Amino acid sequence: MSIRVIERIRAMQAWADEVRREGKRIGLVPTMGCLHEGHLSLIRLARERTDGVVVSIFVNPTQFGPGEDFEKYPRTFERDQELVEQAGGEVIFTPNVEEMYPPGFCTAVQVDKLTEGLCGASRPGHFRGVTTVVAKLLCAVKPHVAVFGQKDFQQAVVIRRMVRDLNLNVEIVIAPIVREADGLAISSRNAYLSPSERRVARVLFQSLEKARERVRAGEREASGIISAMKAEIEAKPMARIDYIEMVDAETIEPATRVEGRVLVALAVWIGKTRLIDNVVLEKK
Amino acid sequence: MSIRVIERIRAMQAWADEVRREGKRIGLVPTMGCLHEGHLSLIRLARERTDGVVVSIFVNPTQFGPGEDFEKYPRTFERDQELVEQAGGEVIFTPNVEEMYPPGFCTAVQVDKLTEGLCGASRPGHFRGVTTVVAKLLCAVKPHVAVFGQKDFQQAVVIRRMVRDLNLNVEIVIAPIVREADGLAISSRNAYLSPSERRVARVLFQSLEKARERVRAGEREASGIISAMKAEIEAKPMARIDYIEMVDAETIEPATRVEGRVLVALAVWIGKTRLIDNVVLEKK
Repeated sequence: MSIRVIERIRAMQAWADEVRREGKRIGLVPTMGCLHEGHLSLIRLARERTDGVVVSIFVNPTQFGPGEDFEKYPRTFERDQELVEQAGGEVIFTPNVEEMYPPGFCTAVQVDKLTEGLCGASRPGHFRGVTTVVAKLLCAVKPHVAVFGQKDFQQAVVIRRMVRDLNLNVEIVIAPIVREADGLAISSRNAYLSPSERRVARVLFQSLEKARERVRAGEREASGIISAMKAEIEAKPMARIDYIEMVDAETIEPATRVEGRVLVALAVWIGKTRLIDNVVLEKK
Repeated sequence: MSIRVIERIRAMQAWADEVRREGKRIGLVPTMGCLHEGHLSLIRLARERTDGVVVSIFVNPTQFGPGEDFEKYPRTFERDQELVEQAGGEVIFTPNVEEMYPPGFCTAVQVDKLTEGLCGASRPGHFRGVTTVVAKLLCAVKPHVAVFGQKDFQQAVVIRRMVRDLNLNVEIVIAPIVREADGLAISSRNAYLSPSERRVARVLFQSLEKARERVRAGEREASGIISAMKAEIEAKPMARIDYIEMVDAETIEPATRVEGRVLVALAVWIGKTRLIDNVVLEKK
């Protein structure tokens, strides 16, 4: 059976209502397409927890800032369709920009506090675009479970907060980061890297490993851990740090010491490509 | 059969899921309690269009500004319960403030443009509070139809926009204003009026009737119509105008002439009580 492709919100909702009437559970994996092994792991996880998985493919203009890569973001729909089918997805929901943002559109969903640091500080307006589009996708697909990747850790925390705050009645599952053999977190943006940049890009993971080792060795101060990471990255001329921070993994507020669950997160430019990665550390 | 009272969001959603599984349609009438004939007309309208009506009763703190009447807003739950029962409501959803805004709550739904004029200008933050709480109520009750009163015309337009923009998949019905014998629009806040203020309060409706007469007589300029309304109201020493405006009934943008559907809306202080009213006029 070939996968079903739905382009209209009304048709998506009608499908969801019908599936819910049958007592079945719906899973959603929201994506911007250009699917890779990371997305496929989310689809498989969603399949384990539900009866039918919808993969949304929508390159959302409102979460890109001026000068960011909205125009050149890779679109690979035919290949995506095959991959969703292989991974066991049931529906691809792929509205166009006019369907999602018709003339007169003027509503936004805003999560405060959790969006102030990390990528929220580097990319003003980014999370407002993300929360608004995810709210729309959740209302269009009406899933019981939605799966997000831990690579976008802050995004997942922000969405979980939004879902609770707006009573969106969906379980948000955060799935582990999938990595290449050398540790680089899989990302659609890795496709932008030249071969030499690709080799340098593993420094993100290496620096996170350095942080993990330091903590394992007893280091607790954020400043010492971050200095070691900086040194690692700054040794690579092609790499430029956007941010490296340690924050509380629940509140995303700056943490000066490893206490409870902390997130060490970084964004690094490799040439003209901005990559992010993170690790959650716990003092045992 | 006695009416069912639900206080928890999860229980409300479980009820809604069950009713929807049975293929029945849910109606919602969101209120702040202190029910009156206006609300009852909304409940009856919702009954005509659905199989089971939920009346929410929640005095929402976030839509009141500093110094407004949140504390003294009338709470009359037992009487409300009887009235909902008589009007044929099936469920009262009455969460408390902690249930709706638990610690850590930090999400808002914001509609731009439509919220800039009229009550949006006089009551900064008011509509952000309204859209956020209505989004929450819609996600908690999962209605097919929600009914709002035309007295809060701008609110209804803003909510209809929010529902479209976020794909909330509910039909928003706007019900006509219910009036006292002398024309005063029924409102919970009328209870604040002293007997002499109550007599003066009919000037809101009188001034709107004046506008209607002027348009019927061929007047088209907003300035002339509004001047006549002002004169009518300013003749009453107890009355103080907050705003009188003519706007396009769809966009809520200022209208200088009666063209298409326009809304003439006003807010007037009668002593310490702020009342609103409006009329939609059309050039035939």
